[in-house]
Amino acid sequence: MAKSPEVEHPQKVFGWAARDTSGVLSPFNFSRRHEIVGIVTEVGSKVTKFKVGDKAGVGCMVGSCRSCDNCAQDLENYCANQAILTYNGEYYDGTRTYGGYSNKLVVDEHFGINFPDNIPLDGAAPLLCAGITVYSPMKYYGLSKPGMHLGVVGLGGLGHVAVKFAKAFGLKVTVISTSISKKEEAIDRLGADNFLVSRDPDQMQAAVGTLDGIIDTVSAVHPLPPLISLLKTNGKLVMVGAPDKPLELPVFSLLMGRKLIGGSGIGGIKETQEMINFAAKHNITADIEVIPMDYVNTAMERLAKGDVKYRFVIDVGNTLKSS
Amino acid sequence: MAKSPEVEHPQKVFGWAARDTSGVLSPFNFSRRHEIVGIVTEVGSKVTKFKVGDKAGVGCMVGSCRSCDNCAQDLENYCANQAILTYNGEYYDGTRTYGGYSNKLVVDEHFGINFPDNIPLDGAAPLLCAGITVYSPMKYYGLSKPGMHLGVVGLGGLGHVAVKFAKAFGLKVTVISTSISKKEEAIDRLGADNFLVSRDPDQMQAAVGTLDGIIDTVSAVHPLPPLISLLKTNGKLVMVGAPDKPLELPVFSLLMGRKLIGGSGIGGIKETQEMINFAAKHNITADIEVIPMDYVNTAMERLAKGDVKYRFVIDVGNTLKSS
Repeated sequence: MAKSPEVEHPQKVFGWAARDTSGVLSPFNFSRRHEIVGIVTEVGSKVTKFKVGDKAGVGCMVGSCRSCDNCAQDLENYCANQAILTYNGEYYDGTRTYGGYSNKLVVDEHFGINFPDNIPLDGAAPLLCAGITVYSPMKYYGLSKPGMHLGVVGLGGLGHVAVKFAKAFGLKVTVISTSISKKEEAIDRLGADNFLVSRDPDQMQAAVGTLDGIIDTVSAVHPLPPLISLLKTNGKLVMVGAPDKPLELPVFSLLMGRKLIGGSGIGGIKETQEMINFAAKHNITADIEVIPMDYVNTAMERLAKGDVKYRFVIDVGNTLKSS
Repeated sequence: MAKSPEVEHPQKVFGWAARDTSGVLSPFNFSRRHEIVGIVTEVGSKVTKFKVGDKAGVGCMVGSCRSCDNCAQDLENYCANQAILTYNGEYYDGTRTYGGYSNKLVVDEHFGINFPDNIPLDGAAPLLCAGITVYSPMKYYGLSKPGMHLGVVGLGGLGHVAVKFAKAFGLKVTVISTSISKKEEAIDRLGADNFLVSRDPDQMQAAVGTLDGIIDTVSAVHPLPPLISLLKTNGKLVMVGAPDKPLELPVFSLLMGRKLIGGSGIGGIKETQEMINFAAKHNITADIEVIPMDYVNTAMERLAKGDVKYRFVIDVGNTLKSS
């Protein structure tokens, strides 16, 4: 029988939470153990990975079965018994996970990420989701070799860090977007080499057969054939966004040129650590807008409109006030 | 300006051909150079790959640009300037290619395949298309490692040789078919380990997450989600049939488990030779029904009804009569 959260989790904390289905967040006192980036204030007696004062982060997962084939291969994100998500997941003991809008969190050291001293906590925090989501498929699908030509579809939270990692890998990068409005941003500020407007048939036609791979970050329904046609022989279209309706796949377009469409979802803990170390070495951070805790509901509204470049980070440490 | 076939191709041959759009074949005299299996009767002065008396075969291609990146990597089948098909293709000089229903053919030695002495010409002939179509993706997508578990969807001309190659690679093989009627054939005669009826939800549910890969040979429109669900993490669904309408692809099903859908179309000449050598070593041939030349129109009617196990082979040498 599940114990009450108060018995299992003696850490009393406070934070902000949506208390009903309106989605509006307000101050909340609760018992918890979770996320996102911060400084280690206390470690258990058997903890070896962290010491007090270390910079640390927690990503999208705080638990997994640790015994299936996938977990054994450092693929906790694909745990056969489902990884425990950091936000509103069900923990081993049946209690809920509460996300990271709070003054403290407690986490199993296995799911904690060491942050090198030179990486800023705020800019690196979104890498724990957006960063690993694009880094992992670039490695797995063999799209991180210097000189390769990578397409990045969509220039949002995932896309802009995909460009940064790809350039750090030594790739040539083409950003593909529905609108020309992001061209200057993509090339001048993020360092992309080319920009393609996906709605311009002439531009798309001129780029047919030029890409080794594509990271497609778009989670809206969109046509795949124009993207498949951009690929060279053996080219790989990797989906990291999840449209809520099925997309149309003309199979013949994969046969001609031995192309593939693959998926990828975040990444394992070992690879997340590797990604953070790589980001620290190459000075990669997400572009962020730091906001105070009580701005969170306005931020949610702006998120719904796509009005952020590119990620909000809540300065919980300095702005969360006890109710 | 293109020369006439008669000037370019002094070999006068006779065979059977469809002379109008009815598709009915009848005796035909023409100038030609092409296909399918037989004995070498003459070689050019610079030919080193064959000598008179050798067994030889010609597959789906008789030419390619020989200069693009794909051709340079022995992927003539993905030639950037399009490979020249053996049947009704346009040859370098602008003339048509006439297929293999004839007494002789002439071919560039590069596109000829050496047949080891121990392999029967009739049973091996279909391997030049069906065999390489399933062998190539098993190698490319890493699905030929002993102990792996492979699904084969559809037990027709492609599917039945896929089972044979997979067993020769040392794989565990599950045949997936819409109908139970092929179960005995699949297991008792072809050596498959398991048989799944794709329309039986209980059987399909019990097999979820058990396959390392699938070779899908079905060219009719069919649902992908049940097949994707059979794959383990990192599983690969490889399409070698080409449905004439787009299939529905729920992207999320690829993200969960880092799965991919890939395509593959026949194979290059070097790999086709490797496949024939492998087949000879492991005594793999296609199951065939040998027919005389003048049975070809009846065979076409039976093909349209799926009434053949599994390939017709026309004994042109013994049954083609000069008109």
